[in-house]
Amino acid sequence: MRRCVKCKGEPVINLKSTNAAFCKEHFIEYFLRQVTRAIKKYKMLAGGQQVLVAVSGGKDSMALWDALLSLGYKADGLHVDLGIGDYSEGSRLVCERFAAVRGARLYVLSLVDMYGASMKEIVRRTRRVSCSVCGTVKRYLMNLVVQQKGYQVVATGHNMDDETAALLGNLMGWQEGYLARQYPHLPSTHSRLPARIKPLVRVGELETEMYCRLRGIEFFADDCPLARGATSLVYKELINSLEEKMPGTKQRFLFGFWDRGRRNFTDVPVELKGCSLCGQPTTADTCLFCRLMQKAGLDPLTQPKVREI
Amino acid sequence: MRRCVKCKGEPVINLKSTNAAFCKEHFIEYFLRQVTRAIKKYKMLAGGQQVLVAVSGGKDSMALWDALLSLGYKADGLHVDLGIGDYSEGSRLVCERFAAVRGARLYVLSLVDMYGASMKEIVRRTRRVSCSVCGTVKRYLMNLVVQQKGYQVVATGHNMDDETAALLGNLMGWQEGYLARQYPHLPSTHSRLPARIKPLVRVGELETEMYCRLRGIEFFADDCPLARGATSLVYKELINSLEEKMPGTKQRFLFGFWDRGRRNFTDVPVELKGCSLCGQPTTADTCLFCRLMQKAGLDPLTQPKVREI
Repeated sequence: MRRCVKCKGEPVINLKSTNAAFCKEHFIEYFLRQVTRAIKKYKMLAGGQQVLVAVSGGKDSMALWDALLSLGYKADGLHVDLGIGDYSEGSRLVCERFAAVRGARLYVLSLVDMYGASMKEIVRRTRRVSCSVCGTVKRYLMNLVVQQKGYQVVATGHNMDDETAALLGNLMGWQEGYLARQYPHLPSTHSRLPARIKPLVRVGELETEMYCRLRGIEFFADDCPLARGATSLVYKELINSLEEKMPGTKQRFLFGFWDRGRRNFTDVPVELKGCSLCGQPTTADTCLFCRLMQKAGLDPLTQPKVREI
Repeated sequence: MRRCVKCKGEPVINLKSTNAAFCKEHFIEYFLRQVTRAIKKYKMLAGGQQVLVAVSGGKDSMALWDALLSLGYKADGLHVDLGIGDYSEGSRLVCERFAAVRGARLYVLSLVDMYGASMKEIVRRTRRVSCSVCGTVKRYLMNLVVQQKGYQVVATGHNMDDETAALLGNLMGWQEGYLARQYPHLPSTHSRLPARIKPLVRVGELETEMYCRLRGIEFFADDCPLARGATSLVYKELINSLEEKMPGTKQRFLFGFWDRGRRNFTDVPVELKGCSLCGQPTTADTCLFCRLMQKAGLDPLTQPKVREI
């Protein structure tokens, strides 16, 4: 392997896409620079603004949380405990230990504590695609915490691979609304909804994992047992095989979309009204969360029990 | 394998994308119906209009020529002999035999006869990507024949796989102009240029091959020796692996693009002027064909020697 491009020191990683090798010190510097560049380019965070990081305990969200803290942002964590056996317990413990070690604030919500049902159980009862149900529930609970605690911005750990796979999927079905809304920084569209940012869009999953390892950040490495066979994994595999054959394709595709492609798609602005059950902003009469919970025979109006660490 | 969806007869093919099996008779009927549907949907051919089919001798263009004749269109062939050894000789003979058997008109142009150089030699001398040089030269010569013989429409054998791969490639680089111009029917943009149509966009390459075999149409099966490693092959492979996992993806992607996606991209209209050397319509001072031929040390003004069969 070639030497570090910065100092000719011992390399720890060789990035094919940019054709550069880095030593430990300069890889961490590179990683943080990519996060900073994304934050600047997409105007994600104004100085001093407090941000709530959605943390699953996996490599991406842990790298994100660490990077934001390291860059001096006031970043608190929110973890939703899905109640899926060892997987969820391990994930939660990772988040709690990180918060303790770094003296960071962490909110924890437990589905089992709140609803008496795990995500596995909720998915089973709704008979819907798991990633879609889980996303809806987590987003909803996150918005409740945002309102309760007064945050204006939520950051998620979506990386370049996640975004590229989503882009390919959205293109395969030519979902114009999704294409228009796929952006690393979505401003708030309602007083009760936060802006959403994705500061990791300039780094891939190999890089978030390497960042965690080099910085000694613990993360929970198991894949979600409910996500097996998810379409997004098929798209990821496909994009990776393309990247393998033509290094740099992923970046060109994704950044080209944001720089030039996306402006061609327009989102039909929809009016948000209050859900007939819970009052949260929605485009339907009853919001998707309330409908899913009702289908699962659970009470959507259950008050969130937020544990603060 | 399941039985023919039309007559429950012996199946010869099982189309996963539409989840239908066909016997010989009903597959041929299905194939011709797809060609008819494409011609109608994209308003390709007015009744009685004579069309010039660009024939390489491969399965796609031979299936196209046969289908157009079978559907009652006046379809003449044009073959450009690239002079690449056995590959080109075999290809030319296939076209000549088809014309003889079917009593169809065929024009043949030979690069070696005209310029004293094969496509392999021309590519070598220009030091450009072979598929790009070859495409430019063939398109140019085709336009000369179109003008000499008075055709208004040229049909090419691009199938669903070709178009899907091209679409993916154009999206990977977000080439807005290419995306706007990717359509099965491009009207003429200049009095000296023909309209260009692709009547096979609703069938894949497995289907064109099966059509040839079932109809007893001879075709030259070897891949072009100059096309090895072409990027389009990488995209095809990738789309096929996606289709394998999610049957119907290819159609959804391509037809969704033409039905909804494409309208989002606009082509900047360019003024066509006469090439300073040959006078043919071009956007540059000197057209790409003339520049390539000059780079190859050949005379771009060589008169086309058209052999009519």
